[in-house]
Amino acid sequence: MSFLFFAIIVSVLTLLFAMFISKEISKKEVGNKKMEEIAGHISEGAMAFLKKEYRYLGIFILVVAIAIAVFLHIKTAISFVLGALFSIAAGYAGMKVGVKANVRTAQAATKGKEDALSVAFSGGTVMGLSVVGLGVLGLAILSLIFNLEIEYITGFGLGASSIALFARVGGGIYTKAADVGADLVGKVEVGIPEDDPRNPAVIADNVGDNVGDIAGMGADLFESYVGSLISALTLGVAASASLGKNAVMFPMYVSVAGIIASIIAIFIVRYSKGKDPQKTLNLGLYVSVVLMIIFSLILSKTILNTIKPFISVLVGILVGVFIGKITEYYTSDNYKPVKTIAEESQTGAATNIISGLAIGMKSTVVPILIIALGVLLSYFLIGGAEDASLGLYGIALAAVGMLATSGMVISVDAYGPIADNAGGIAQMADMPKEVREITDKLDSVGNTTAAIGKGFAIGSAALTALALFASYAQAVNLESINLLNPLTLTGLLVGCMVPFLFAALTMEAVGKSATKMVEEVRRQFKEKKGIMEGTEKPDYAKCVEISTDAALKEMLLPGILAIAIPLVVGFLLGVEALAGTIAGALGTGVMVAMFMSNAGGAWDNAKKYIEGGAYGGKGSDSHKAAVVGDTVGDPFKDTSGPSMNILIKLMTIVSVVFAVVISNYGGILLK
Amino acid sequence: MSFLFFAIIVSVLTLLFAMFISKEISKKEVGNKKMEEIAGHISEGAMAFLKKEYRYLGIFILVVAIAIAVFLHIKTAISFVLGALFSIAAGYAGMKVGVKANVRTAQAATKGKEDALSVAFSGGTVMGLSVVGLGVLGLAILSLIFNLEIEYITGFGLGASSIALFARVGGGIYTKAADVGADLVGKVEVGIPEDDPRNPAVIADNVGDNVGDIAGMGADLFESYVGSLISALTLGVAASASLGKNAVMFPMYVSVAGIIASIIAIFIVRYSKGKDPQKTLNLGLYVSVVLMIIFSLILSKTILNTIKPFISVLVGILVGVFIGKITEYYTSDNYKPVKTIAEESQTGAATNIISGLAIGMKSTVVPILIIALGVLLSYFLIGGAEDASLGLYGIALAAVGMLATSGMVISVDAYGPIADNAGGIAQMADMPKEVREITDKLDSVGNTTAAIGKGFAIGSAALTALALFASYAQAVNLESINLLNPLTLTGLLVGCMVPFLFAALTMEAVGKSATKMVEEVRRQFKEKKGIMEGTEKPDYAKCVEISTDAALKEMLLPGILAIAIPLVVGFLLGVEALAGTIAGALGTGVMVAMFMSNAGGAWDNAKKYIEGGAYGGKGSDSHKAAVVGDTVGDPFKDTSGPSMNILIKLMTIVSVVFAVVISNYGGILLK
Repeated sequence: MSFLFFAIIVSVLTLLFAMFISKEISKKEVGNKKMEEIAGHISEGAMAFLKKEYRYLGIFILVVAIAIAVFLHIKTAISFVLGALFSIAAGYAGMKVGVKANVRTAQAATKGKEDALSVAFSGGTVMGLSVVGLGVLGLAILSLIFNLEIEYITGFGLGASSIALFARVGGGIYTKAADVGADLVGKVEVGIPEDDPRNPAVIADNVGDNVGDIAGMGADLFESYVGSLISALTLGVAASASLGKNAVMFPMYVSVAGIIASIIAIFIVRYSKGKDPQKTLNLGLYVSVVLMIIFSLILSKTILNTIKPFISVLVGILVGVFIGKITEYYTSDNYKPVKTIAEESQTGAATNIISGLAIGMKSTVVPILIIALGVLLSYFLIGGAEDASLGLYGIALAAVGMLATSGMVISVDAYGPIADNAGGIAQMADMPKEVREITDKLDSVGNTTAAIGKGFAIGSAALTALALFASYAQAVNLESINLLNPLTLTGLLVGCMVPFLFAALTMEAVGKSATKMVEEVRRQFKEKKGIMEGTEKPDYAKCVEISTDAALKEMLLPGILAIAIPLVVGFLLGVEALAGTIAGALGTGVMVAMFMSNAGGAWDNAKKYIEGGAYGGKGSDSHKAAVVGDTVGDPFKDTSGPSMNILIKLMTIVSVVFAVVISNYGGILLK
Repeated sequence: MSFLFFAIIVSVLTLLFAMFISKEISKKEVGNKKMEEIAGHISEGAMAFLKKEYRYLGIFILVVAIAIAVFLHIKTAISFVLGALFSIAAGYAGMKVGVKANVRTAQAATKGKEDALSVAFSGGTVMGLSVVGLGVLGLAILSLIFNLEIEYITGFGLGASSIALFARVGGGIYTKAADVGADLVGKVEVGIPEDDPRNPAVIADNVGDNVGDIAGMGADLFESYVGSLISALTLGVAASASLGKNAVMFPMYVSVAGIIASIIAIFIVRYSKGKDPQKTLNLGLYVSVVLMIIFSLILSKTILNTIKPFISVLVGILVGVFIGKITEYYTSDNYKPVKTIAEESQTGAATNIISGLAIGMKSTVVPILIIALGVLLSYFLIGGAEDASLGLYGIALAAVGMLATSGMVISVDAYGPIADNAGGIAQMADMPKEVREITDKLDSVGNTTAAIGKGFAIGSAALTALALFASYAQAVNLESINLLNPLTLTGLLVGCMVPFLFAALTMEAVGKSATKMVEEVRRQFKEKKGIMEGTEKPDYAKCVEISTDAALKEMLLPGILAIAIPLVVGFLLGVEALAGTIAGALGTGVMVAMFMSNAGGAWDNAKKYIEGGAYGGKGSDSHKAAVVGDTVGDPFKDTSGPSMNILIKLMTIVSVVFAVVISNYGGILLK
């Protein structure tokens, strides 16, 4: 338990460090008046979204907390509220700083690539450090005050998951509604370039990048980070029979070590003087991984007197690295898949779509084999064959290991949208061509890091959900979940269906929201004739409001389903049917996540590849076909695909938290 | 056992009846010289495909039979060969008659709608009666000679499945390569209408309809028909503990009753003088269902002295009916989904694609809930809660019940492509407008019946695979398949991935084959200048050859995977991992099947809806967008989607047949 105090100290220091960096960014130059004005609009828009979202969230948290307090326990409710608030805090910090860093990156680009990289990456680190700092801090505090009674602490994970739902699904709808709306009218109908300040939806589009790619991604990984830790703590209790009582705290040690490894890596990126931003960021990632491996080896040997748990951690770390690399292969235009899509665009939109769908589907194969191998190795090498509880603990450790370096991974990942937005601001503020070239370079590096980050998010969601699945079984006292039981089997079928329903609903949500945006942008261009001539200002706030309202409204149904389906299945058909449902949703959800994210990423880059001059370049028929693919890919990669991560974790954590009640009162149809 | 003789007599009479109808069709008028010539080309093309396919199949059957004889038992090998030969015979009969009926339907249309319907439907009945007659005949003979040793009889199912793989996957690739190839050059580049005899790929396209939609569909349902019966026979052994020894033979009684019900229904369709073909066919379907319900109630009460098994059968019948109806809802332009896609086409190809994908995904929800409910009811109402083996028998009975009326369902289903082809011939032979109107009407009825048939095929594949899954567990002596076992869990993940891989490979296969076809058609237009002026004949045979070769070559990899994956998983990781893999493939495969088939069907009809005058009609921008969706939908609905049915059944039956070997020697990685 004394280690918990140490963990609290480290996490508080981490958060202070994040605050320090945030202050440091604030001090940087904003640039000229025009830039300041644009940045002001984006900042206002982001805050408008957050404020409205928090109003909804406040009610949601209150209602759920009361329900938990009544049906479960007041302590679980407290954990839930804390988890939700901490996730909100992490998202708020990340967005606040992201918005500040955007414009300052653009300004820093006037001085050179290194300066711009430094500001953009610093912006990312605030999000990265906030996520891991708040994750460890929250769990350490709850472990202390609830004396390690994990049953209550699971509420923290549910809190984190609920906010992730709003941030990732709502954010995904927000960003694509704005993006599609801005493009359809601006680029296609009116014929003004992307990021043109005359486009009324341009600010909403930029806000969307922050909302979806920074806050959404951060909340997603916060959920994984916290979920995997909770699962490992739960399963550590049973594992202590063979590993000694330190098994419970070991995952916390690993996470704290991961924070330290991330901070060291962050310093290396900050002070390395490399010319190539890609190499600099890669260096940071590799340092964090290598340090993490060394740290966890030492910890495993000293704390648990065996290197076996280390092997599980190592497996998790490697799974994360490989999945990131494979995602890059399928979505970067340096490799065959994206080139094939570009080539197929020559025969029109249909062949572009078919090849993108096929490549997205194929991209599931290797990652799933790696995850499967990772599960088997982390289970068996720790001794799962002799002691199943040890094996399940091994799976949870793999998830914790994979996520331990989240501080660094998120920093790199959040850097991408900041660089992207900086480019947008440079464009809007008519900055010199050299500046735009630097931001373009940083942005293209951001595309690669984003791909790796997306793969990492899916892989970690899968491992976390698997670990939580084991926690669920333990919580409902199922030693075996029998697939021959028709309840499990039908649960499995229903579970396999849920990701398809969720994907359909989120895609349709984007469509509906985008339509509203299109109508508003058209209206403004029609009613305010001065906008095109530059004599009249577009009403940015109205577009921000439309995206905000649409996102919050359209996420309601999928959100309710994700929470309600496990409860309904559990209460109607009991614990085994629910186990089947989680397993089915997990299995199919991971595939749909990879399929949609990677297809979307590949379409995007195939279009960019053609824009770079291949197959006729910009304006050619190939390009038109590729634009269709890119547009289909937008909700794929930024809304529906990433939403799967939330879906599978949320369904599982809901089951874990309500395990006892379902176990006691569930299965009413069978009685 | 004496009932087996009765079953053999009924099935032989059924086959004789099919032959009688076939003769009857041959006697009908062929029409004028031009029609005869075109019909000759189609017939030649179909036979050319079959001949080449049989050469491949011969080698395949020989190799697998030897492997089975060596590793399993000579009796299993005999069953396998018989299953393969019977499936080939059913497909051959169906195609041979289909090709004959096409042209005669066109000619009969000169006399009126009733005559045309009668010929087209008669053509379909030959396929329908052949499938059920050969299915029961084969299983009854094997049951007699192997004295009901089910272990060997499972080989019959494997034989049927293997041929289904060639017929459905190969046929699906064939038909779409020809269709897409013909359209891309003919309609788009050269600007001649569909079914124009100047198009060198037009014969291949028409052959493809017979290959894919008649032979492919027939082989698919033959596999389900046989698979569900085998599963019920297997599980009947354990169920006889409580139901008495007649439990083993009861499924056979149900199937024979189903044949009789189908024949009565066929007579009603043949001799009803209704004006509306849709109503006439529906009447036949409902008669067969009602009779089947009455027959199975009587059989259950008299043979097993309880109506409980009847309830399982009834559940299966109703599941089949409902799934067909829902499929119709999602793919017919009388309802909202298709209209939505048409509406979304106004904003371009991207929104058309997104809404089609979303609707396809949503179309999985209700059918899967119905299947899940069906599984639970058929399991629990027969008494599965007290005796699990009884419950599993109930699931198998539901599958048998659903498929019992296959004779009628396939007749109606095979009617569709015959009517479609008749329309094509009428067009090619420049027949009068009234004739074309009649064939168009029959064709549009065929679209509805095809949708119902597709839903039925997916639903029956799901129930059959579920029943076979239970047979597998029994064969490897697993009383419980534990999802908490990491082997089961990783097996599940891998299984969930397989349908995505299979879908990707089959889509790409269509793409590659279509490209070859496009090149050939272009070459002919370029080198034979006289084709367009009508002074020179296109080389139809060359296009048939390309489709044939491409189909047989491109189906190799997916085909090998479907057979190899269960064997590899079983031998490397053992019976529980394999159970997980089958369950995962089943769960995800059913979703992907519905998603792709229904999205494809909906896109197709959205295009037709616009062609009917909505949203600007033919030639408008909406129409262009809808054409993109339709082209993407082609491999969705006719290749990848239906291939899932084969995939899930084949993987399961491979596991059942090799159960004992895998059980004894599998899991080598764990030893």
